[in-house]
Amino acid sequence: MTYDLWYWTGIPGRGEFVRLPMEAAGIPYRDRAREEGDEAVVKHLKAMQHHPAFAVPLLEGDGLKIAQTANILLYLGEKHGIAPQDTEGRLWVHQLQLTIADVVVEAHDTHHPVAASLYYEDQKEPSIRAAELFREERIPAFLDYFERATGSGDWLAGNEWSYADTSLFQLWEGLRHAFPKRMKALAGDYRKIGAIAKRVTALPRLKDYLASEQRLSFNEHGLFRHYPELDVA
Amino acid sequence: MTYDLWYWTGIPGRGEFVRLPMEAAGIPYRDRAREEGDEAVVKHLKAMQHHPAFAVPLLEGDGLKIAQTANILLYLGEKHGIAPQDTEGRLWVHQLQLTIADVVVEAHDTHHPVAASLYYEDQKEPSIRAAELFREERIPAFLDYFERATGSGDWLAGNEWSYADTSLFQLWEGLRHAFPKRMKALAGDYRKIGAIAKRVTALPRLKDYLASEQRLSFNEHGLFRHYPELDVA
Repeated sequence: MTYDLWYWTGIPGRGEFVRLPMEAAGIPYRDRAREEGDEAVVKHLKAMQHHPAFAVPLLEGDGLKIAQTANILLYLGEKHGIAPQDTEGRLWVHQLQLTIADVVVEAHDTHHPVAASLYYEDQKEPSIRAAELFREERIPAFLDYFERATGSGDWLAGNEWSYADTSLFQLWEGLRHAFPKRMKALAGDYRKIGAIAKRVTALPRLKDYLASEQRLSFNEHGLFRHYPELDVA
Repeated sequence: MTYDLWYWTGIPGRGEFVRLPMEAAGIPYRDRAREEGDEAVVKHLKAMQHHPAFAVPLLEGDGLKIAQTANILLYLGEKHGIAPQDTEGRLWVHQLQLTIADVVVEAHDTHHPVAASLYYEDQKEPSIRAAELFREERIPAFLDYFERATGSGDWLAGNEWSYADTSLFQLWEGLRHAFPKRMKALAGDYRKIGAIAKRVTALPRLKDYLASEQRLSFNEHGLFRHYPELDVA
């Protein structure tokens, strides 16, 4: 069976948190908007009757329509074994994913503190202050946590990779794109996170995906944006 | 078995999304900070070794330590039958919970657009603009969605209440506390949501809880705050 993934073209965004473990596990999917355009996403969302989605990413297949990034990953973790199958491990990986999702929102809100619907240029002044506090307080708070959360194994949940690892990699890369100076200054404090990120890039199938044209670069339309005025070491 | 719930005293906050279904289902728990104070929460979080939590709410019991509101509810849903047990229903209720969590963050950020660590008074100007766009664009977008998401049954997932219903009730009440003028103007458009909120207050065990001193009122230290300057019909 081939899943249908619905997510905007042009940005890695939240869709990439779904693509990464699917690519790493070799789970087949069609990236519908990349075949049919973003208008198809809007049309598809509007037409949903039963169990509608508020937003994308949306994964369909197996008779299911699942929205919300962490929810999609919960499902994939259970169905395709890309998370521990026991209750404790399953909840632990989901907890990490939800905490990563919290950082993602805060990182986005550094350049959109007032509203997602306004241009960055129209909220630049509060952005500068928001980014300062995010860099100084929140990045270390969250990364201290993830560094502490890594156990003694090679991966967040022991000896096998899970979707929490691919998500931590994407978060790490996103922060390095948005705040290169700050992250360069901090990287030495987070060697375990850095090592997990490196292991993710070396997963055989993912290595090919990351080198392919399918892998979208971070850019200034997405969650993690590099505005030089928001980055200080 | 009695669970231990760790959450700050003095505000309903995210802890209340956990308390409501536990109260409604009669699941026994101790509210640890209300016995031992907020310092005990700080101390407890710092001392966690295995599977630490970034923040509270944190639920312990059954040999598990579970953080992140939606993750706790996922567990309670599965363990105590306060969510559908089939895959489709289980993911649907979790999807709704995660979407409610998104609104909660946006509602909080209307009074703390720049940083949670600054006083409201120090970010009042961007708050006024953030609240305006939240009232005008985001409240209707989210409530339109939840109104559409209610099916033909009495509850969000059919004929039995789930944690998504208690959470929708808490969101509805929180928005009514923070934006009474705006919500009064909009209430007529969301009769199905209003009906679910009313049904939640009539759940036998919950009725007693909501009338008790245990139930914390919304106040201006929590997620949903009423600042008159942020509310316009």
